[in-house]
Amino acid sequence: MSTADQVTLLQENVEIFLPDNALAEKLALAQKENRKLIIKLGFDPTAPNLHLGHAVVLKKLRQFQDLGHTIVIIIGDFTARIGDPTGKNKSRLPLSAEQVQVNAQTYVNQLSKILDVGKCQIRYNSEWLGSMDMGQTIQLLSQVTLAQIMQRTDFNNRFEKGLPISLHELAYPLLQGFDSTQIQADIEMGGTDQLFNCSMGRQLQESAGLPSQAVLCMPLLKGIDGSAKMSKSEHNIIGLTDEPQEMFGKIMSIPDALLPEYLHLVTDFTPAQKQQLLAQLEQGDNPMVLKKEIGKNVVQQYHSPETAQQALAFFQNQFQNKRFEEKEFTQISLATLPLIAQNSFSLLEVCKMLKPEESKSNLRRLIEAGSVTVDGEKAIDAHSLLLRQNLPLKIKIGKRSFFELTV
Amino acid sequence: MSTADQVTLLQENVEIFLPDNALAEKLALAQKENRKLIIKLGFDPTAPNLHLGHAVVLKKLRQFQDLGHTIVIIIGDFTARIGDPTGKNKSRLPLSAEQVQVNAQTYVNQLSKILDVGKCQIRYNSEWLGSMDMGQTIQLLSQVTLAQIMQRTDFNNRFEKGLPISLHELAYPLLQGFDSTQIQADIEMGGTDQLFNCSMGRQLQESAGLPSQAVLCMPLLKGIDGSAKMSKSEHNIIGLTDEPQEMFGKIMSIPDALLPEYLHLVTDFTPAQKQQLLAQLEQGDNPMVLKKEIGKNVVQQYHSPETAQQALAFFQNQFQNKRFEEKEFTQISLATLPLIAQNSFSLLEVCKMLKPEESKSNLRRLIEAGSVTVDGEKAIDAHSLLLRQNLPLKIKIGKRSFFELTV
Repeated sequence: MSTADQVTLLQENVEIFLPDNALAEKLALAQKENRKLIIKLGFDPTAPNLHLGHAVVLKKLRQFQDLGHTIVIIIGDFTARIGDPTGKNKSRLPLSAEQVQVNAQTYVNQLSKILDVGKCQIRYNSEWLGSMDMGQTIQLLSQVTLAQIMQRTDFNNRFEKGLPISLHELAYPLLQGFDSTQIQADIEMGGTDQLFNCSMGRQLQESAGLPSQAVLCMPLLKGIDGSAKMSKSEHNIIGLTDEPQEMFGKIMSIPDALLPEYLHLVTDFTPAQKQQLLAQLEQGDNPMVLKKEIGKNVVQQYHSPETAQQALAFFQNQFQNKRFEEKEFTQISLATLPLIAQNSFSLLEVCKMLKPEESKSNLRRLIEAGSVTVDGEKAIDAHSLLLRQNLPLKIKIGKRSFFELTV
Repeated sequence: MSTADQVTLLQENVEIFLPDNALAEKLALAQKENRKLIIKLGFDPTAPNLHLGHAVVLKKLRQFQDLGHTIVIIIGDFTARIGDPTGKNKSRLPLSAEQVQVNAQTYVNQLSKILDVGKCQIRYNSEWLGSMDMGQTIQLLSQVTLAQIMQRTDFNNRFEKGLPISLHELAYPLLQGFDSTQIQADIEMGGTDQLFNCSMGRQLQESAGLPSQAVLCMPLLKGIDGSAKMSKSEHNIIGLTDEPQEMFGKIMSIPDALLPEYLHLVTDFTPAQKQQLLAQLEQGDNPMVLKKEIGKNVVQQYHSPETAQQALAFFQNQFQNKRFEEKEFTQISLATLPLIAQNSFSLLEVCKMLKPEESKSNLRRLIEAGSVTVDGEKAIDAHSLLLRQNLPLKIKIGKRSFFELTV
């Protein structure tokens, strides 16, 4: 493939290029030096569950990989094992070596859904950070000014609001940047929220007398609620390991306004196919048509064409072709539940028994929002009592869970 | 001596106590635990020349030492050997181990003019900082917030003015504070400009589960020009190793307004003697009388009573008893100077030859300020020419340098 064609392919969907002509320059460099590029992606092993938001970056990496370039995955085990020594940041509890290893393995397993992991280099940054002493740490710190680090939006906001920032937090972006000097990255990839940290790598490489990496940032995919970026803490994710029906159903639930974004960022349609699908939408097609295309495409990527077809069929059967009375209810006998000894049970108790994977607070929210029905009637009081003598009862929880509770 | 009497003695001249009742509490603690206190003084081995400003703190330490407490001198060799890795701070060039050793020895030699060095503990902070790794450094950094460190006036001023602050600079006060945890200091002493750094020690000791040290800050002595604190960079110091005549002459040159400050901070008169001398001044004595008392007292401390008497006599002989024509001029023959081949020479050139230890810019300032006379006439143009044919010429430079330049 010519360099120009590679640029066309690789620049699709990229939101930020640092510097502007980064991609073309690095590809030209690779050709001139007759070598492949080193593309870096950092991973924080405290949160190993990947979702379609991560996939946006990973799919871009796959394109680089398919062109023969080397993907280097940096597992940030050094800082994960230190955690947040202040103990204030609960998402930064220190991890043991074993936990890091387990998380890294989980992560790599999920990567394999998109990348050819066998061809990736997996590096742990404790390899170089673990042997540095205080003097070397101070040398590293000296290469960046406070004003530079305060350009990071979240630091600046917290400082201006008078919220505490521990000094070690200022050091963490430098450690990520230092990783780039160690693997001599040509390009670092991330979401747009990683622009600052990635640019640290450029600066530290320059200080070390190395060529500065280019930075390519992908857009942050919105979550299925359409309100915020996809993130576990927002409970709006589609996980790469979600089951086909779940994955398809979640795609079907996104707001119509997100369709173009999802079409571009989560499917693997060709640009021509995408253009055609968008044209149909603009010509007045029901958005549901495009949603199904996106849903099938996504399930196909992470499972198979067959399961994609089955997920579509299941969805149509469950949610489109039948009235409430005709839905397929999962029969559950009270005898199989821990409630057997009681003669009455709160609605919340019952819901929790039927969907043990949901938190009670989530279920309570669903009930209060009117998303739970008992024999077709909305039940909005979590404490309302169901009586054994009234069984069987048909209970619907949310949009996709149907149970028939029997004696 | 009773604890109350010790407090009375030790609190004299102290400008800041942190906390307010620090001194009495620590002395009571020592008595209760039947032990002596550990008093810390840090020393930066990049600037080993001590002057009367340093002596203000050292004399207080001597009082503690005379009461049997342990003085621990921390030589900050760890950071001195790193220096300022940015290379921007010329006063923080990295020092070799040998240079640190030489500077420390020079420093200890000068300390011996005030302290019983044999009873001091001399510790190098590389002993504990040198073996810390990046993880431990990050742990240390985590114990302080950015907002806390920005309370240090100079950081705050620089940040607000947009002047660069390298991140490693923020770490240095923590290292000084960490020293306190290692020697388990009861009290840290310093000038008032060290209050912030010393308070870091309190915080880090508390984090480490140790009792917090008290901080005692001595006033910053003004330099002999009366305009700024005594400091080498201001060229307004009286060095502890200055020769008796120089030392005495400099004391005689201080502005009258500084007399009470100097009486309190640089002499070793008893409180009663100080009171009496001040009373005489207030009753209309010529300030010169008090100046001579201070001058003799200071020379006596750093040299001997005899040299103090000689310095007084020399001063009176040179500056008070004689008119200009009767001064003792140092005869210098042009033949001994590198100017021999010329027939005319600029005033500045001549001054530089006569006082090679002065910088040209200083000499130019003296000339332009009217402090140089040629045969009794002020010469304020540094470029004015002196002709060989006019020799011999009597040249006075400043207040205390008289030369007769001959052929």
